[in-house]
Amino acid sequence: MSAVTHGWHRLSSRNPLVGFVDACLRGPAQVVFQNNPLTGLIILVALAWGAFENGQPRVFGGGVLGLVVGTATALALQVDRTSLRQGLFGFSPLLTGLAVPTFLDDRPLMWLYLVLGAVGTTVVTLALNAIFKKWGLTAFTFPFVLTTWVLLMAAYQFDRFTVLTDMTPKLPGEGSLTGGSFDWDLIPTFLRGVSQVFLINSWVSGLIIVIALLVNSRWSALFAVVGTVGATLLALWFGADGASLDKGLYGFNAVLTAIAVGAVMHRPGTLVTVYTLFGIALTLFVQMALATVLTPLAIPVLTGPFNIATWLLLLPQRHFAPVPNHERVKESVVSTLKRAV
Amino acid sequence: MSAVTHGWHRLSSRNPLVGFVDACLRGPAQVVFQNNPLTGLIILVALAWGAFENGQPRVFGGGVLGLVVGTATALALQVDRTSLRQGLFGFSPLLTGLAVPTFLDDRPLMWLYLVLGAVGTTVVTLALNAIFKKWGLTAFTFPFVLTTWVLLMAAYQFDRFTVLTDMTPKLPGEGSLTGGSFDWDLIPTFLRGVSQVFLINSWVSGLIIVIALLVNSRWSALFAVVGTVGATLLALWFGADGASLDKGLYGFNAVLTAIAVGAVMHRPGTLVTVYTLFGIALTLFVQMALATVLTPLAIPVLTGPFNIATWLLLLPQRHFAPVPNHERVKESVVSTLKRAV
Amino acid sequence: MSAVTHGWHRLSSRNPLVGFVDACLRGPAQVVFQNNPLTGLIILVALAWGAFENGQPRVFGGGVLGLVVGTATALALQVDRTSLRQGLFGFSPLLTGLAVPTFLDDRPLMWLYLVLGAVGTTVVTLALNAIFKKWGLTAFTFPFVLTTWVLLMAAYQFDRFTVLTDMTPKLPGEGSLTGGSFDWDLIPTFLRGVSQVFLINSWVSGLIIVIALLVNSRWSALFAVVGTVGATLLALWFGADGASLDKGLYGFNAVLTAIAVGAVMHRPGTLVTVYTLFGIALTLFVQMALATVLTPLAIPVLTGPFNIATWLLLLPQRHFAPVPNHERVKESVVSTLKRAV
Repeated sequence: MSAVTHGWHRLSSRNPLVGFVDACLRGPAQVVFQNNPLTGLIILVALAWGAFENGQPRVFGGGVLGLVVGTATALALQVDRTSLRQGLFGFSPLLTGLAVPTFLDDRPLMWLYLVLGAVGTTVVTLALNAIFKKWGLTAFTFPFVLTTWVLLMAAYQFDRFTVLTDMTPKLPGEGSLTGGSFDWDLIPTFLRGVSQVFLINSWVSGLIIVIALLVNSRWSALFAVVGTVGATLLALWFGADGASLDKGLYGFNAVLTAIAVGAVMHRPGTLVTVYTLFGIALTLFVQMALATVLTPLAIPVLTGPFNIATWLLLLPQRHFAPVPNHERVKESVVSTLKRAV
Repeated sequence: MSAVTHGWHRLSSRNPLVGFVDACLRGPAQVVFQNNPLTGLIILVALAWGAFENGQPRVFGGGVLGLVVGTATALALQVDRTSLRQGLFGFSPLLTGLAVPTFLDDRPLMWLYLVLGAVGTTVVTLALNAIFKKWGLTAFTFPFVLTTWVLLMAAYQFDRFTVLTDMTPKLPGEGSLTGGSFDWDLIPTFLRGVSQVFLINSWVSGLIIVIALLVNSRWSALFAVVGTVGATLLALWFGADGASLDKGLYGFNAVLTAIAVGAVMHRPGTLVTVYTLFGIALTLFVQMALATVLTPLAIPVLTGPFNIATWLLLLPQRHFAPVPNHERVKESVVSTLKRAV
Repeated sequence: MSAVTHGWHRLSSRNPLVGFVDACLRGPAQVVFQNNPLTGLIILVALAWGAFENGQPRVFGGGVLGLVVGTATALALQVDRTSLRQGLFGFSPLLTGLAVPTFLDDRPLMWLYLVLGAVGTTVVTLALNAIFKKWGLTAFTFPFVLTTWVLLMAAYQFDRFTVLTDMTPKLPGEGSLTGGSFDWDLIPTFLRGVSQVFLINSWVSGLIIVIALLVNSRWSALFAVVGTVGATLLALWFGADGASLDKGLYGFNAVLTAIAVGAVMHRPGTLVTVYTLFGIALTLFVQMALATVLTPLAIPVLTGPFNIATWLLLLPQRHFAPVPNHERVKESVVSTLKRAV
């Protein structure tokens, strides 16, 4: 294994094409804050499984196209090379590429729209990171969220597109909130909460993604599970919509908050865990509030709630023994793979 | 009196518990920009009066609980000790604590929601202050506004809560705008404009709050009155809704803008007064616009308009002889109490 | 010609009143990023023509009043003198002054509202520029957009005003999107796209504005045309509303983006042109999305999409050979007029 790892590492730093593939593979891993091409590869397998299981192979195709176009756009715009190599310009366009075929009907023009959206996601990533670095933060997946919201809301105004979300624009409170009933099949629901990070509704995909996390970081895998379990149970307790619960839709934002706050930005510990549990509740409340705001527009919250909640949790810069920056940055492919295996 | 003041000051700096009580008492005073525990105490009396008068004692209880939980959270998160001691981490959670029982129905889970909201308000205070300090500003009461909006909009999505605002989600322009008629009983209306700063509808409470201001700063009391009179008369002239006018709902945001811009952030003077009068109009227009934005969501504007208008008025940093920072900061409990008595 | 130019230049720097007139004349030119009183004068002629052609002379009067009040407010608030002299405090109030009589019914109180709006636009300009300068950006026309949105949304809450936009608050997707049919008379449509920058629906005005641009900068005139042609054709291809297309409403935001990104902020070139073409698409998508967001509020997008898209395009600070700052700043009236003639 070590030989394979070393070989890949050497190859990707010498051969520009392999380097590009390496950067692309890290994209899916960076959605869940991991800098590891193997994690990314396993996640791609999970996405392929989920897309085919749901009879929507074009969703997988869209994701891969977005990932490649977004990373290539970053290359053309001559972004910081180290960030590019770590997959930091691939993860948002990947999500945009997954979202567009999920929410728009299938027609040739949709693919042009997707490509423009992937290019736009990279430009927005550069723009928002320039804004957020004033506070020592990054834009996380918000470039994906913003770009996809724009693409969906613009599609309402174009005759050539049909928006396929299962929502219609209405005022908050109209219609039955708790139309769907929840069948209490909890474990698959928790796992769907993980897969929904990538807009995939499949407990098998969720399980594979947890494995992909385990490959790189046990703490991240653990906090991912804590996130989906915590938020789903809290939503259940407070009486949220059963159908959405069942699809894992109250779990995925908290998965990301929990990994970021609990495992990546701080050294795991007691105080950090308490703060993370509060963060899971905060993420759920922000998600519910954002769902109300977006009800008249009939667009999904995507990972907006995770972004908002995590910025709010990190901005105070409380000193819960944060992971020193140099440790995070200097982790080479070799060391991360070594630690994982 | 001086002996009492000195005694309290000595006690609160020696005994941590008394120090905590002192910090909590300054919370209500900091809502209206005063750093004085006596002002805070008198305001608490005003809130108790108003809550009982309106048959809603739980609103007062919620406020006190929010104040204590929010200040305690700040202590646990090891915030800047001087700011904590000045009540700067109590005022927003106090308002959140007043708002939650005002706008949600009474049930045990509401109290858990309130406590989570108070904790959240302190986290959001830290987060937003980190953002705003780049421009030499603070978040004012916006952490309360943001947190309460999130709590109310999230409550729409939970079966276990019922939102009790007297609004229903609708499109702007639907229904009769000027349904309520105004009875021209102006003085009580102006005073209700002051009490509504704390979400209380009671002219007696408003009068007590003006007295609480007088105890610490005559200019602040004067500009509070100018704010409520100016905004209410302008709203009346332009033909705003009579029922809201009567409740003082067009006054309270301008009260805060007028104190901040006219009495606290600048030395009172002619040019400053002209700017403040413009600021009162600006606050009213922003309030009306925000009311339109929030119509489909059926949530109240709270003190959002004051925050937005005051940021806009302070950002240009025009040199109307601002109060030197060291004067504001160095004011000890003794000197503020001395000046007050 | 040179003698006239020199004479005006000398006069305006010596006589404060002529200097004020000079600053006011540069206001209309600064909307389209030109620092030239002659360009501004020709644009005023275009606005007068369009307002009278449409039977709305009060729109032209409102524009001039806004321009003068806004510039005078900046003088009273003692803003940076050089910026004032370049017309940088006139362009947003001019637009506010054009918008208020366009969207509100004619009555004496409307004029007071317009004057308060023009004062407010200058205060908001100072406030937003203070925010944006942290990222090396300016607020462009966003002070106009924000102020006018506030004025219109506030007007919904006042009995004394009637909002005259040809929209009613509704949910996105309600009603037929493509009600209007497009008559394929393309050239006038493109020119109306230029005149709509100033809220004027007249191809003659659009033509005069292009000439005004040519007087100062051929690249700006060229990119203005590229902007309106590109965005209009893209909207047509994707199937946007025919009636709005016909009025040039999908062109004007892209006109501003194209001039800013293609001709003013970078040296024109191949890579810059590709980036500008992408920027035109981005502007259109943002415009369509913003139109969806604003549908429940029934207020127009104004030049909001241009501002958002251009900030996003400039924030990444890609090095497409930007125009050195000193060249832009040092351009005197003489040199710009010389180059133009």
